[in-house]
Amino acid sequence: MADPSLRDELADFVAERDWAQFHTPENLAKSISIEAAELLECFQWGPDADTGRVRDELADVLTYCLLLTDRLGLDAETIVRDKLERTREKYPVEKARGRSAKYDEL
Amino acid sequence: MADPSLRDELADFVAERDWAQFHTPENLAKSISIEAAELLECFQWGPDADTGRVRDELADVLTYCLLLTDRLGLDAETIVRDKLERTREKYPVEKARGRSAKYDEL
Amino acid sequence: MADPSLRDELADFVAERDWAQFHTPENLAKSISIEAAELLECFQWGPDADTGRVRDELADVLTYCLLLTDRLGLDAETIVRDKLERTREKYPVEKARGRSAKYDEL
Amino acid sequence: MADPSLRDELADFVAERDWAQFHTPENLAKSISIEAAELLECFQWGPDADTGRVRDELADVLTYCLLLTDRLGLDAETIVRDKLERTREKYPVEKARGRSAKYDEL
Repeated sequence: MADPSLRDELADFVAERDWAQFHTPENLAKSISIEAAELLECFQWGPDADTGRVRDELADVLTYCLLLTDRLGLDAETIVRDKLERTREKYPVEKARGRSAKYDEL
Repeated sequence: MADPSLRDELADFVAERDWAQFHTPENLAKSISIEAAELLECFQWGPDADTGRVRDELADVLTYCLLLTDRLGLDAETIVRDKLERTREKYPVEKARGRSAKYDEL
Repeated sequence: MADPSLRDELADFVAERDWAQFHTPENLAKSISIEAAELLECFQWGPDADTGRVRDELADVLTYCLLLTDRLGLDAETIVRDKLERTREKYPVEKARGRSAKYDEL
Repeated sequence: MADPSLRDELADFVAERDWAQFHTPENLAKSISIEAAELLECFQWGPDADTGRVRDELADVLTYCLLLTDRLGLDAETIVRDKLERTREKYPVEKARGRSAKYDEL
């Protein structure tokens, strides 16, 4: 995920516009929440949403996520895999299968 | 981004637990907002946050984003690149450089 | 808070437009998150925000909160007071004074 | 809404703990989003939620909203009424009745 060329493309895009100054981790975290809510707005009144709009908003959330992973010197794929490993332990198949309950209620 | 093996790993993780039934696009959109706020909580009272915690919450946001892109039959990298193209047009370098203003205020 | 006349005014506003059908608790919860993010957007790149815009977005969050309290047959002031009582216990003055730490870290 | 005594109660609660220093408008806006997502989490996997939990989280959102209105020298009820007036104009009954569409799509 975020192979070097997409990372570079995003970094160039930001550098060309001299926007790194605004991309503090805190501002990026706020931005992720802001875009996540624009994605949620596609479903404000029900489960059916315009796919094009969902696609756009999801792209915005992902973009800010990639900017933040990069800002923190992390690799998106690595942190997802690492977290998945811990989630396996919190949600063992035999307990969690078919259940949406949180791990402390399994 | 989300090379086939990470996608498969996530898909297997979900399938093993029979969780796809909960992963409607709407529920995934809600989940992205929920996790985005947990990430934001790292910065609730100021700009400095525990890096390990930020890393964890960011991984959760990314995970749900990847689950949603997959659920919609999209490719994460493709939608980010496509959106970046449109953002270039909305924020031409000569107008946007060094400015955080929204495109309709440039 | 939300004296009978403001409650009635909101209820009439909704009834006139036949909007109660959309105001399920879940949809109202989504709406609160959506508007909260529009409020947050006023501060996306820093701590200074346009007061008029903050005022507007805050009004929207409050409006949806009042619609939800009403939908659930609750009274806004009562639930805030009740919660404050419990928060007093979680954050006793002698431990919490001057500290932003969460109660389990006091 | 937020009659003088609830306002005072909240203000005293904050003052006793010397917490006003953390309550910048930006931090309060972040807090509102954070609590709104905890409310949303009650509905993460579907429309039915534990009423006690919803009540609690809703109280938290309202509390931070009242802290922010007070911090900005506003009155919660006044700003809701003012916004309602403008919303009447954006959503005239004859056009908006029974429709969840946004005002620019009516």
